[in-house]
Amino acid sequence: MAPHPLDPATPEELEFAVNIIRKLYDVPIHFKTAGLEEPPKAEMKKYLEAEHAGQPVTPPNRWILVMYYLKRTPRLFEAIVDVTAGKIIHHKEMPRTHHAPVDRVELNEAAQVALADDRVKKELERLQLGDTAVVLDPWDYGKDDENEQRRLTQIFFYTRNPKNNSPDSNHYAFPLDFMAIVDLIEMKVVKICHLPLGAEPITTQHTGPRKLGNPEEPEYDHTLQSKPPRTTLKPLQVIQPDGASFKLTGRLIEWEKWRFRVGFNWREGMVLHDVTFDGRPVFYRLSLSEMFVPYGDPRDPLHRKGAFDLGNVGAGVTANDLSLGCDCLGVIAYLSGHVINAHGDVVAKNNCICIHEVDAGIQWKHTNHRTGKASVVRKRQLQLQTIITVANYEYIFYWVLDQSGEIEFETRATGILSTTPIDPDNTDKIPFATRVGNGVLAPYHQHIFNLRIDPAIDGHNNTLSYVDSVPMPQDPSLNPYGTGYMTKETKITTSSTVKTDPLAARIFKISNPSKINPVSLAPVAYKLVPISSQVLLANTDSWHHRRADFCDAPIWVTKYNDRELFPAGDYTNQSSGGEGIRSWVARNDNVENEDMVIWHTYTFTHNPRPEDFPIMPAESVRIALKPVGFFNYNPTMDVPPSNQAFNQSKLYDPTLQVGADSQVSELPAQVNGLHINGNGHVAANGVHGVNGANGTNGSCCSARS
Amino acid sequence: MAPHPLDPATPEELEFAVNIIRKLYDVPIHFKTAGLEEPPKAEMKKYLEAEHAGQPVTPPNRWILVMYYLKRTPRLFEAIVDVTAGKIIHHKEMPRTHHAPVDRVELNEAAQVALADDRVKKELERLQLGDTAVVLDPWDYGKDDENEQRRLTQIFFYTRNPKNNSPDSNHYAFPLDFMAIVDLIEMKVVKICHLPLGAEPITTQHTGPRKLGNPEEPEYDHTLQSKPPRTTLKPLQVIQPDGASFKLTGRLIEWEKWRFRVGFNWREGMVLHDVTFDGRPVFYRLSLSEMFVPYGDPRDPLHRKGAFDLGNVGAGVTANDLSLGCDCLGVIAYLSGHVINAHGDVVAKNNCICIHEVDAGIQWKHTNHRTGKASVVRKRQLQLQTIITVANYEYIFYWVLDQSGEIEFETRATGILSTTPIDPDNTDKIPFATRVGNGVLAPYHQHIFNLRIDPAIDGHNNTLSYVDSVPMPQDPSLNPYGTGYMTKETKITTSSTVKTDPLAARIFKISNPSKINPVSLAPVAYKLVPISSQVLLANTDSWHHRRADFCDAPIWVTKYNDRELFPAGDYTNQSSGGEGIRSWVARNDNVENEDMVIWHTYTFTHNPRPEDFPIMPAESVRIALKPVGFFNYNPTMDVPPSNQAFNQSKLYDPTLQVGADSQVSELPAQVNGLHINGNGHVAANGVHGVNGANGTNGSCCSARS
Repeated sequence: MAPHPLDPATPEELEFAVNIIRKLYDVPIHFKTAGLEEPPKAEMKKYLEAEHAGQPVTPPNRWILVMYYLKRTPRLFEAIVDVTAGKIIHHKEMPRTHHAPVDRVELNEAAQVALADDRVKKELERLQLGDTAVVLDPWDYGKDDENEQRRLTQIFFYTRNPKNNSPDSNHYAFPLDFMAIVDLIEMKVVKICHLPLGAEPITTQHTGPRKLGNPEEPEYDHTLQSKPPRTTLKPLQVIQPDGASFKLTGRLIEWEKWRFRVGFNWREGMVLHDVTFDGRPVFYRLSLSEMFVPYGDPRDPLHRKGAFDLGNVGAGVTANDLSLGCDCLGVIAYLSGHVINAHGDVVAKNNCICIHEVDAGIQWKHTNHRTGKASVVRKRQLQLQTIITVANYEYIFYWVLDQSGEIEFETRATGILSTTPIDPDNTDKIPFATRVGNGVLAPYHQHIFNLRIDPAIDGHNNTLSYVDSVPMPQDPSLNPYGTGYMTKETKITTSSTVKTDPLAARIFKISNPSKINPVSLAPVAYKLVPISSQVLLANTDSWHHRRADFCDAPIWVTKYNDRELFPAGDYTNQSSGGEGIRSWVARNDNVENEDMVIWHTYTFTHNPRPEDFPIMPAESVRIALKPVGFFNYNPTMDVPPSNQAFNQSKLYDPTLQVGADSQVSELPAQVNGLHINGNGHVAANGVHGVNGANGTNGSCCSARS
Repeated sequence: MAPHPLDPATPEELEFAVNIIRKLYDVPIHFKTAGLEEPPKAEMKKYLEAEHAGQPVTPPNRWILVMYYLKRTPRLFEAIVDVTAGKIIHHKEMPRTHHAPVDRVELNEAAQVALADDRVKKELERLQLGDTAVVLDPWDYGKDDENEQRRLTQIFFYTRNPKNNSPDSNHYAFPLDFMAIVDLIEMKVVKICHLPLGAEPITTQHTGPRKLGNPEEPEYDHTLQSKPPRTTLKPLQVIQPDGASFKLTGRLIEWEKWRFRVGFNWREGMVLHDVTFDGRPVFYRLSLSEMFVPYGDPRDPLHRKGAFDLGNVGAGVTANDLSLGCDCLGVIAYLSGHVINAHGDVVAKNNCICIHEVDAGIQWKHTNHRTGKASVVRKRQLQLQTIITVANYEYIFYWVLDQSGEIEFETRATGILSTTPIDPDNTDKIPFATRVGNGVLAPYHQHIFNLRIDPAIDGHNNTLSYVDSVPMPQDPSLNPYGTGYMTKETKITTSSTVKTDPLAARIFKISNPSKINPVSLAPVAYKLVPISSQVLLANTDSWHHRRADFCDAPIWVTKYNDRELFPAGDYTNQSSGGEGIRSWVARNDNVENEDMVIWHTYTFTHNPRPEDFPIMPAESVRIALKPVGFFNYNPTMDVPPSNQAFNQSKLYDPTLQVGADSQVSELPAQVNGLHINGNGHVAANGVHGVNGANGTNGSCCSARS
């Protein structure tokens, strides 16, 4: 069966594209990336229109975008291979200022080279590490010099936990006091730097042996911890006796009036395409577009730490193989994807997306106090989760769809802090970092994300406006008592940035001016409920700022253009900036009643806590997209009522020890406290009034039985 | 068994207190409220210290606070009855400016009086309603006149749905065009007003019959809806085969190192007392303290709509009787409470608090890409939920505790909009309201809540500071590349208000200056992660602003004083203001290293959507309290790993129709998409480097098996 035009690259397509490139040269190729180059939107609009109408037309050709180097040279190329037609339709050598993403193969080689370097050996001897194994963390290099065009990596040194020397010990609890810079083309160490061990920037070289710190609990791996796991937690299982409520056909998901496709590529990982509700288009494409992690530690050589985790590494490349019963509960479906490695081999990313339903509490409830009848509907959600591991750090991303037409995007940050050493006896106040263990310093840093929202609210031509709630002017006839307030809507007519403003209850409305809601008499719309957070803290003349285009404003609006997917530019590794969203916004395109794209930048400003070590309890935020006059009334009206027959809850049994059997029988509803008879009430006169002390807040079950 | 000093009033205690008051008079008493008057904090500190140390001392006497009127008079009294000693220890007649909360009995009587009034009858005849039953919504009156001291209620008129005339039909879809004001002492109608039917303030009286609107789906009650419920949703059950992980003893809850007591009273409903983690005090008392719902519709007579739902009615009085399998899933424990009605009878509020565990996804995860080993720990939470029904509206409040030492307070708003009529043919732009159905207008309004936080971070003397993240100054030696940023901490030394500032990543730190964290070398602390939202929009010279003390700033800090629990004052009904938190802050008390209280005001600015009708999909927000250097390391390290043996998830089965059996057998992990062999990888050299395309993101299960 032929892939859908929006399906990810198949292994066969990737191999075909790689082989076409191989055939061009008789020198070895260092492959970097390959994945689907999506069809131009103009073509896809036609295709999807026909598909939605049930009259499928011939799909556009399948294209694969490949990035590669001539091995051991700075010569970088990008090519688009039309695998349907069997030919290269785009082929370009990139300027020397451009660098492709890092890859495991070259970084591992660089680490081996570093370990073999005499100066590194001398440093390790100085430190007198005994039998404890050394662990190296190669980092993408960053940028601090206009003229530096070599492809470089910076390598930080750690050891395993001396107490166990285990390959699974948490080496971030045992940082060493020097680092090395390796040229990835020459494959040799070009510089060694000593790291500061106190608040002051380093002045002298370190001479003595390692002064080992002693973190209280350095290990996250249960098998290496000093104490056994607690035994107090009893199982909690999500059981779906009749299976899931969603239907998965290839990459097409249908669930509770939602219909959409799940894409995947090396860079963005999970992507949602062609999202419709009840047959009405809502979004053309939804994806995390980029991520920048600048560190606040100003001390040379740590000032370069600032990684574009999507552009430099890839959310698809680093996606976890998710496991049943570990990463989610209930009935789980998995989707996989494929990438390539440096040799051009296809690598399967198995089970890199999991799909399951969640109960999120109450969707709506009302008790009619006049009759005591309660109506309750629960909030069922569909979650699509992907988890990426970027060296020390983990990110969990998931899309959450619900029955009310809402879509949320949740970001969770967990994993291990990137640490640097501090003299265990040092007690200086460090204004830009936190001590997270004896001898272990965790610098402040930001995680700055950008969510790309390509809307299609009942069609592709939409308008973004922001709506504030503001007091009505004092006016003897219109606002005589000063109690009135109103909304103020401002349309975004040309490509630009917009600030968030929670103190004005600002929402961002994506509307379709050519479709009026018959109830509200306003254009049909969705609203973006953004995360109001901090922009990039690095100075505006810093390299961080020059390179991280999208990080100094929360909301960006651009006119849609093909191949404008990545707001810090297509090539972020050691980048110089200037090719990202700032330049697109500067075009001053019309974006009113236009095919436009909204980009939402949001930030975790992460000033570590001791509680974030040795591993970090997940921090999470959610962005919401909600209908606002898209529907004529609450679309969950017909969700069946919540009741015990369906939900099978159990009453807490204070006498219960262990074993499921005793859970089966139900106890009287009242398990605690003194009681006069439950009917010691005023008779409900069943008329009206505020709900008071007559206890007629009935139960939904009793009202339904 | 004697109640704990912090346990809610028992039925016996309430009856005893009511009878002592009854005996004082030979005229009839109109009782308003009765509940526990908590012991002075000075006494409780001693008692809890001894209790924590396992050397219980004699508990303080039990006190009951009673509010009552001499029936049909404006004479209002408050009394504190010492039920242990059997005597009244405080007794005071309140000034005429003070009014007790509304109650069902008097409001029902007022509604009957209105229906019997000739002018009301004439209006109903004019409207020609036929057989459709009239429904009355009495509202607390509000305030718009300095000299108005009568106890009043304002009554809005609706009808049932003419199509079904059912007592459970949604009358808010069928508003009438007039309202009445009733004197609650004289028990007679004192005024009739016609309501505006367009954007303009009303100028003339209405003369014609009702012009009936035709909302598309007016009914939330499934049995009255035009369409049957959908059948697409399959059951999702939370099963805890070994029961719950928490222990409930009376009102004491112990769960995963947490220990606390659950209080209850007519006004605040659920209250948490004496919250400790691993034996260390964290919070003395946590409660929702007040709530104000001002409407933005400026038009007379709607300008008065502004209700204090706690002070005027009571979150305990309106608490729902929660039902197994309707309001939550899993193994549920319930707690009950007691209030009194207008006759002084004790009324049981059965099952008004439910307690259960929730799985909230992943708590932490890391994959060691060097070995492929993944460690995953799930985020188990304990939730305590209460749901209140205030006439048309529902609020869901719950406390969420987790294993990492975090406490969250979630607020959900649902229920039915308070509506007013609009001419079905009118098409004016209404700047302060939304059409939610033909003929039905829903005015903009705000829900302004205040959460009272009485901390005890390792002791009662704490300091509040706010911490911003700010760029480091450009400095050739200290910040040579402009990448550095730092935190700036500002201590609150005297009682005052503080602004939120998400753009500075501002957090509010509650620390204990006399206890230093040995890892961070900073005082142990918790942080408040506030909701940054809009303050009261009504003008500062409006009655709304004068009365709603707490609504014009997000954070308030006061020195602790007994009987300072309610930030808009003890008597909010028809209040004039001046007795709330503004006056406490004005004392300029020292609050540094003091027993102080933090008050967090947060707002839903609710500009209705058509999607919010006929019933509103829940809107929710969460406030978080998180340890920040309270612990030496992540307190969840010893939570057992997440694995399939414990969680029993099932793989999605595309062939499954219905029936649980076919769920049992598991399919191969790969259910979708083409695959080359999963080992088509680069061999992992098991050393280091960023996590790349070598696919060693192992699964936790495989790593554990």
